[in-house]
Amino acid sequence: MDYNSDLIIIGAGPGGYKAAVHAAKHGLKVTIFEDVNVGGTCLNVGCIPTKTYVHSATFAEAVERQQQVVEQLRGGVETLLSHPNITLVREKGVFIDAHTVSGYTAPNIIVATGSSPKMLPIAGADSPRVVDSTGLLSLRALPKKLCIIGAGVIGMEFASVFQRFGSEVTVIEYLKECLPMVDSDIAKRLRKLLEKRGITFRMKTAVQDLSEIDADIILMATGRKPNTEGLNLKAAGITLAPNGTIPADDNYQIANCNSSNSKLFAIGDVNGKQMLAHAAEMQGIHVVNQILGIEDKIRFEVMPAAIFTEPEAACVGPTEDQLKETGTAFECHKSFYRANGKALAMNETEGMVKLCCEPNEGRILSAHVFGAHAADIVQEVTAYITLNATLRQLRDTVHIHPTLSEVLIEVN
Amino acid sequence: MDYNSDLIIIGAGPGGYKAAVHAAKHGLKVTIFEDVNVGGTCLNVGCIPTKTYVHSATFAEAVERQQQVVEQLRGGVETLLSHPNITLVREKGVFIDAHTVSGYTAPNIIVATGSSPKMLPIAGADSPRVVDSTGLLSLRALPKKLCIIGAGVIGMEFASVFQRFGSEVTVIEYLKECLPMVDSDIAKRLRKLLEKRGITFRMKTAVQDLSEIDADIILMATGRKPNTEGLNLKAAGITLAPNGTIPADDNYQIANCNSSNSKLFAIGDVNGKQMLAHAAEMQGIHVVNQILGIEDKIRFEVMPAAIFTEPEAACVGPTEDQLKETGTAFECHKSFYRANGKALAMNETEGMVKLCCEPNEGRILSAHVFGAHAADIVQEVTAYITLNATLRQLRDTVHIHPTLSEVLIEVN
Repeated sequence: MDYNSDLIIIGAGPGGYKAAVHAAKHGLKVTIFEDVNVGGTCLNVGCIPTKTYVHSATFAEAVERQQQVVEQLRGGVETLLSHPNITLVREKGVFIDAHTVSGYTAPNIIVATGSSPKMLPIAGADSPRVVDSTGLLSLRALPKKLCIIGAGVIGMEFASVFQRFGSEVTVIEYLKECLPMVDSDIAKRLRKLLEKRGITFRMKTAVQDLSEIDADIILMATGRKPNTEGLNLKAAGITLAPNGTIPADDNYQIANCNSSNSKLFAIGDVNGKQMLAHAAEMQGIHVVNQILGIEDKIRFEVMPAAIFTEPEAACVGPTEDQLKETGTAFECHKSFYRANGKALAMNETEGMVKLCCEPNEGRILSAHVFGAHAADIVQEVTAYITLNATLRQLRDTVHIHPTLSEVLIEVN
Repeated sequence: MDYNSDLIIIGAGPGGYKAAVHAAKHGLKVTIFEDVNVGGTCLNVGCIPTKTYVHSATFAEAVERQQQVVEQLRGGVETLLSHPNITLVREKGVFIDAHTVSGYTAPNIIVATGSSPKMLPIAGADSPRVVDSTGLLSLRALPKKLCIIGAGVIGMEFASVFQRFGSEVTVIEYLKECLPMVDSDIAKRLRKLLEKRGITFRMKTAVQDLSEIDADIILMATGRKPNTEGLNLKAAGITLAPNGTIPADDNYQIANCNSSNSKLFAIGDVNGKQMLAHAAEMQGIHVVNQILGIEDKIRFEVMPAAIFTEPEAACVGPTEDQLKETGTAFECHKSFYRANGKALAMNETEGMVKLCCEPNEGRILSAHVFGAHAADIVQEVTAYITLNATLRQLRDTVHIHPTLSEVLIEVN
């Protein structure tokens, strides 16, 4: 049949817009739909404004800079999307059938609609003082008392930054430890450090009624849900998984989809696989590579992540507990920032690194770090892991003195 | 013959003390000589105090913290050297013959005596206002006007930090550009940036008479000379190279040495090969590995380095000019911090990265960066270069969003 595009993308967040640009550069004619702002949650109300808060000295500065930073980056994305091969349609993309979205047709369609904050339906949740992360970022006055429900990444980042701005912060978490995806050793040390700085943690605590909480603002940071409403997925033969995500296979093609015409893909938060902006980006690039017949070697199981608390934490690969559960033979190597010259010079002596590798300083399996520049250090280890290198090879690699990265070669 | 040590090391700087600890851990009986402070120039009057200045808000804070940081790290080195296999002799090691140093004998001797600031013998150099880097770090009052002779690493780092503390800084350099070892593109941009911040640069300028300079303090940052005096090298059959260094081969064994008994090595600044603390450390480890019969894969040609100006600069591998001179087939890929979300959030938008690689996104040859976290970014690329990876492999590696490291996958 005749198509008026090579590729349709629904959603111009990090997954969608990067895929569009990559495809356009390689000559594909792309139609991309966005009914809110290009850049998605990450750029507009997620990672970027949050990191602007982290790197502002005061709440007032954060509020002021937030808008500038977001607008500048959004302008950059708009410029990228002005590529002659890209048609940006500023409306919600809705499926008409398995190869048609709001009047545009293509043999390849990517759903990249992201996710939204999930609010728990508990008593008192309808009060105006109860906000999600978007609501918190739109406050224009610093809350005196801030209560955060949920000690995941979003909860911990906001706890750290609002405590520094001067709010009295309490975090309530149902589980026994924060950051369940992070190595428990790192998570516990980070929580203890933030406790020492004045944040109150109430772990293993279920909230029954928000109206009983003594706080000016309550942030509900209890997870995110995939954005699938209003897409008319049924028309394309797409059936949601029981958890509400669009099920996709290892190449991000939509599973259980009885379309025999177009190839349908789901990338980013909406497929529920790895809810990270950079995962969405790489999934999108991988899908476009498939369409183009380009072979890539992206290793989606080597997925680093960072939490921008102060100090930050970051990790790549399985936690120590996960390695034990799977019966993997491994050894753990640790070192501490307090013995590192640069950390002392920076007055950033709180931190540690844990490397898990195969026995006898063999292949590196994972890295877990908290402390200054943790994200950079984990990013470096991600290179070794992606290239199947051993701890021995890491130790033989020259590390600049004095840098925090020397904590890697100083592991026991 | 009978030796009372397995290894003698002269000098307990980064090269010497790391070699001692590595050897001791592997069962060698080590004697190490140090007549000043353990930790050497780097820890006591070099990298570490300088980085403490870089990470202090004011001159007063820098002066105060300097002593604490240095003492704490020196205490750490003393602890490491208290290993039962190590004898620390707190005097200058002097050769008696090719296997004897100040009464101790060993089949292996490492000279790791480092270097000292080289003062140019020009008019006015004997004034008390003319200091070397050690003298500058011992000032207790901030100079109103600081003149720095030499735009190498030491000159540039001090220029950056003293300008920030409030001194009026002028840098005078004989060559046409600063930092001759750095890619000229990066060096020029960094200098222009520091000029914009208020530092005066007088390039291509020869200083005839220091007494004509209008400054309270003049820092002579015109290079360093190897420490070879008083070692009685002649007794060991060691002859200096014309430039005053101890000539060493690719395995750091001393060349032209007619000793047939003991193996003599020279590591670190004294051999003049790569005057960097981390080069000295790795050379020392490599020498000890040879003694122990351990095969390592340290690639001394992949030697990253950083300059801790603000923003910092860092590099690994040949500059673009060097690649051209050697007729290497290569391509250059660049990206800029101003398009990076984390850089905007951090308000650190001044910076760029340049990657040189073999044609068609092939093997990465070098990286040149200036901007926030440049050292970490170069350290990451050092992993790829050491492991012979291609730019294509770097691009296929997942990078955490939002981090500065994304500048690497965003290169054109």
